[in-house]
Amino acid sequence: MIAVYGGIEGGGTKFVCAVGSGPDELHSVCSFDTEGPEETLDRAAAFFGEQQEALWRQGSAKIEAVGVAMFGPVDVRPGSPSYGHVLSTPKAGWSGADILGPLSESLGVPLVLDTDVNAAALAEWRWGAACECDPALYLTVGTGIGGGVFVNGRPLHGLLHPEMGHIHVRRHPNDPASFLGICPFHGDCLEGMASGPALEQRWGSRPEALPVDHPAWDIQAYYLAQAVVTCIYTLAPERIVLGGGVMRGPGLLAKVRREVRILLKGYLRSEAVGAGIDAYIVAPALGDRAGVLGALALAERLQ
Amino acid sequence: MIAVYGGIEGGGTKFVCAVGSGPDELHSVCSFDTEGPEETLDRAAAFFGEQQEALWRQGSAKIEAVGVAMFGPVDVRPGSPSYGHVLSTPKAGWSGADILGPLSESLGVPLVLDTDVNAAALAEWRWGAACECDPALYLTVGTGIGGGVFVNGRPLHGLLHPEMGHIHVRRHPNDPASFLGICPFHGDCLEGMASGPALEQRWGSRPEALPVDHPAWDIQAYYLAQAVVTCIYTLAPERIVLGGGVMRGPGLLAKVRREVRILLKGYLRSEAVGAGIDAYIVAPALGDRAGVLGALALAERLQ
Repeated sequence: MIAVYGGIEGGGTKFVCAVGSGPDELHSVCSFDTEGPEETLDRAAAFFGEQQEALWRQGSAKIEAVGVAMFGPVDVRPGSPSYGHVLSTPKAGWSGADILGPLSESLGVPLVLDTDVNAAALAEWRWGAACECDPALYLTVGTGIGGGVFVNGRPLHGLLHPEMGHIHVRRHPNDPASFLGICPFHGDCLEGMASGPALEQRWGSRPEALPVDHPAWDIQAYYLAQAVVTCIYTLAPERIVLGGGVMRGPGLLAKVRREVRILLKGYLRSEAVGAGIDAYIVAPALGDRAGVLGALALAERLQ
Repeated sequence: MIAVYGGIEGGGTKFVCAVGSGPDELHSVCSFDTEGPEETLDRAAAFFGEQQEALWRQGSAKIEAVGVAMFGPVDVRPGSPSYGHVLSTPKAGWSGADILGPLSESLGVPLVLDTDVNAAALAEWRWGAACECDPALYLTVGTGIGGGVFVNGRPLHGLLHPEMGHIHVRRHPNDPASFLGICPFHGDCLEGMASGPALEQRWGSRPEALPVDHPAWDIQAYYLAQAVVTCIYTLAPERIVLGGGVMRGPGLLAKVRREVRILLKGYLRSEAVGAGIDAYIVAPALGDRAGVLGALALAERLQ
């Protein structure tokens, strides 16, 4: 009998819940809009309750554990008094919300929580585009920019968790001078210059509506490549997975690879950043499912 | 009977060899100038031969294993065909030099090799200023700038090893416009702007001769703080140790701490980067001995 786990991807706009044991054994997936913490967590708990009941009726496996892949900032340090709580966030009603407490009460199974991006990095390492790669780096570029790292056999935690979105970048010479960046903390950090909302505000158009020959894409690739190069220098990843909605921009991944080589200026003599770069900086293999699969993988690791 | 290990700190200007089991049990230390690989490694092997003989005569412990903390770039990946070899380096005669091969033949004990900075990070984690801190980051600022990381219970390797020295930095507005940076690859990366030789070339004076009120120090702190903040965003270290000769500059450590807080702009709500910053960004506890002690610690971990 295959062990079965629960996964919750807690995003700022929607929650995705799943029961299963991997990308090819997902028994059930549901998703719903993110409301306040209480309603949202109740709904997640109800889903797992139904799933557990269905498994019982089938005389099949029980849900061994549930993993939560949560939007940040969130306290991911087991043992910390606020472990499993959302920290200060602009998302109304969620600052300080206890995620693990209510779920633990409802579900009565072991629970584990990490950031959505650490979970995605874990999932891509476990089943996806970064199999056997340690360190594995996952960067997501969407409404925000975030990064997760799997290193020396475990997700990366520390002072808190990585915050790749706020790396400083050098300004592209063709970036309109009137655009100062939109990060409420830093203005022109990576997220301030290269997140989806930054593109929209600068160009007056949603990223998916910008044509392939728009100058936005070269500028965007320059910023993202700086972040990738910074992560190569600090983390030495064996593979870099670039996900999130903005990465679907036409030709963007290829432009980022090219800019990375330009910025390295031949410094690292590794095949990975030379002829092998197409296999080094890659799209996610698990697509939209990386978050919830990462949550399953977190639960699996509890056993 | 306490186990005894050998450590070699292989630097670009000198080699330091030691036998012992920790900072308070260093039986013997010797250091000599770095010549070509053959003479230098022979000399190291001769030292350990004498030490081993002395231990035998005393009926005391034998050297269980030897660790090597080597200047980079160096192949640190056990299993790689060039594991234990120096890679491409400007240091005459050392490009491609096999370090572990000749030592293994001479010494006949288990050997392990890592970068000098990863070894220093390990030593500060094991006995020094970053005890119990994981991740622990060690940055050295001297002739070059390098970084080592201890994370999830082990030194950080990957594509190769971290190369913090080449992080891009934003230019300080008061940095003389005529100074373009001295990194042969990137010009104005961190090492190009903030290494000892960069200071010397820019200000026409060795760092140790620059007075406390010289504008160099604010500019220097700005560059180093950018690297520290970048490492906080990518690695989330629980402690950051800043070592190397340039860090002995008057008031520099305090200036770096102040700049880090300015650059973070309140983004990370952690005591460590607030009231606790003096305990978060710290000087090495092991001083000049971090490298060779790290080499001992590498050997100790083989057991």
